[in-house]
Amino acid sequence: MEILEKLLDIELPIIQAPMAGVQGSELAIAVSRAGGLGSLPGAMLGIDSLRQEITAIQSQTTQPFNVNFFCHSPPAIDAERETRWRELLTPYYRELGLDPQSILPGPGRSPFNEQIADVLLDVKPAVVSFHFGLPTTELTAKVKSTGAKILSSATTVAEALWLEARGVDAIIAQGIEAGGHRGSFLSDDLSLQMSTFALVPQIVARVKVPVIAAGGIASVDGVAAAMKLGAVGVQVGTAYLLCPETTTSAIHRAALRSAQAQHTAITNLFTGRPARGIVNRLIRELGPVSPAAPLFPLAASAIAPLRAKAESQASGEYSPLWAGQNTTGCKEVAAAELTRQLAGD
Amino acid sequence: MEILEKLLDIELPIIQAPMAGVQGSELAIAVSRAGGLGSLPGAMLGIDSLRQEITAIQSQTTQPFNVNFFCHSPPAIDAERETRWRELLTPYYRELGLDPQSILPGPGRSPFNEQIADVLLDVKPAVVSFHFGLPTTELTAKVKSTGAKILSSATTVAEALWLEARGVDAIIAQGIEAGGHRGSFLSDDLSLQMSTFALVPQIVARVKVPVIAAGGIASVDGVAAAMKLGAVGVQVGTAYLLCPETTTSAIHRAALRSAQAQHTAITNLFTGRPARGIVNRLIRELGPVSPAAPLFPLAASAIAPLRAKAESQASGEYSPLWAGQNTTGCKEVAAAELTRQLAGD
Repeated sequence: MEILEKLLDIELPIIQAPMAGVQGSELAIAVSRAGGLGSLPGAMLGIDSLRQEITAIQSQTTQPFNVNFFCHSPPAIDAERETRWRELLTPYYRELGLDPQSILPGPGRSPFNEQIADVLLDVKPAVVSFHFGLPTTELTAKVKSTGAKILSSATTVAEALWLEARGVDAIIAQGIEAGGHRGSFLSDDLSLQMSTFALVPQIVARVKVPVIAAGGIASVDGVAAAMKLGAVGVQVGTAYLLCPETTTSAIHRAALRSAQAQHTAITNLFTGRPARGIVNRLIRELGPVSPAAPLFPLAASAIAPLRAKAESQASGEYSPLWAGQNTTGCKEVAAAELTRQLAGD
Repeated sequence: MEILEKLLDIELPIIQAPMAGVQGSELAIAVSRAGGLGSLPGAMLGIDSLRQEITAIQSQTTQPFNVNFFCHSPPAIDAERETRWRELLTPYYRELGLDPQSILPGPGRSPFNEQIADVLLDVKPAVVSFHFGLPTTELTAKVKSTGAKILSSATTVAEALWLEARGVDAIIAQGIEAGGHRGSFLSDDLSLQMSTFALVPQIVARVKVPVIAAGGIASVDGVAAAMKLGAVGVQVGTAYLLCPETTTSAIHRAALRSAQAQHTAITNLFTGRPARGIVNRLIRELGPVSPAAPLFPLAASAIAPLRAKAESQASGEYSPLWAGQNTTGCKEVAAAELTRQLAGD
């Protein structure tokens, strides 16, 4: 028992899911100090910010923490697809008084790279987790050489076997109910994505490394249920979204507290990769999944001005309101308290 | 505790899911005799067969059993849609050497009606469950007057509240991972469908009637996990599909035993209503969800000859290979043994 606690040197088998865009070091610090594993999302941080955020964590706690990175292959910009995407969005630009000509394709999120690995060699976080598979063998080896335990998400049995073969220390089985980006990397066929109830036991039956359950877990009973399915711990994201240590926007918070939160969908509109969020106008009218959306992360740049303008008018109709299917655990309590509640501590 | 056992007068909190097309009285008898609640699917039975099957159960056991019915509103035949549907299927008719002109639109499954209610008044099953909501108020009252406990499936919180307001004795919370037809009836928006992990606690939090979990439950640990989420019992279908008491076809059995079973999808191709089955050629090429498929149950008649011809050639590429996302519980053991295993008995 307590396999995860031993592996990661933590007190409680609760990993706070890294959530790029809605949290920084503050949430990670609170969770790690409470005995769980706090996570810093690195996907949207430049090198300097990454270093600052990690330094901030290390100045506040000596407990282990996790730094998370995306490891997609950045696509080439497809001019035709970009044009089609902008055409599709033009009525919204017009409605919000934006000039479609002024919106340029941007680079968006960058994947894990050599430079980031160098930072990790310096700062030596206890845990590094990846989304969308793993970096190259060389880069992965470099991360291992820091002494960090490596985690990554699997959304199918095939992905779990792939990760195990490449030496991860534990696998996060991400059920279809999870909020934010699907971690899938071997196939883009959404029908392959399974629920936590179906996925966890199937992965547990096939791999030897410890399995962490993610998706739909929002209470101490949910944690116990995930353990019953064979998980050694859980990764929880959505439940933390209302904690004061997050940077969740007022619009996002209001949506999470409303009945709207009962309707989420997996959509590719905001970034080009499937991710679960609360259904809003953009999803209703163009999605949830549009073949016109440019590949990850390129779809985001054409959405950004719509989102900014709408949010300035207190509207979340063009914002990625990431959330899982079970928002019943969202509470306006300190992250430390929520962590202890989830662990039944 | 043991709320479900008391409510339904059963020993084990295990309901065998009614599975039209792959089982009759034999499976229901075995499960009820083992102390669970066996179910007879009535959806595809004529009045005489229904009566015979119920008589068969009552001659073999005095234990409670469940009879299940669909309660959809039969749609009018839309000639244009039927034509479009047949056009879409024509390449397959050609490939299999079938004459598209010989295939007529048929009536398909009929919903619960007055005549069936009369049979129930006679035979008085202990439990009657419905899929796709409930029959009219009058018909529902008539079923209640037989003394039967009434169950129905909810796939959203809204559906659970709807069913509770209409007096069901318990609600089956059907997670998105469940095999066969979605029980949804208030909306056809598939993005509203939630996983067992997300759905069960949300329904439990909102209704006073007992909640039964369905979807992805395939082992004694799965049952325990569902109970942790607040369910008082479970409804299990997929795990029973290989039991000798089922009529699951050899083709369907082979698919369930193969790696193919790891890839299921919710499809409307076979009947017109969304249902989860193992992905085969028809689903890959036309679906999983096609707007051309006629409304339930009309889509089935144009598929029937393709299915029959392909199955005669040992192919399941046009068959509804219903299965949930978690087939790890499928075992070639007697249904009584499986029932006891699920209950940890």
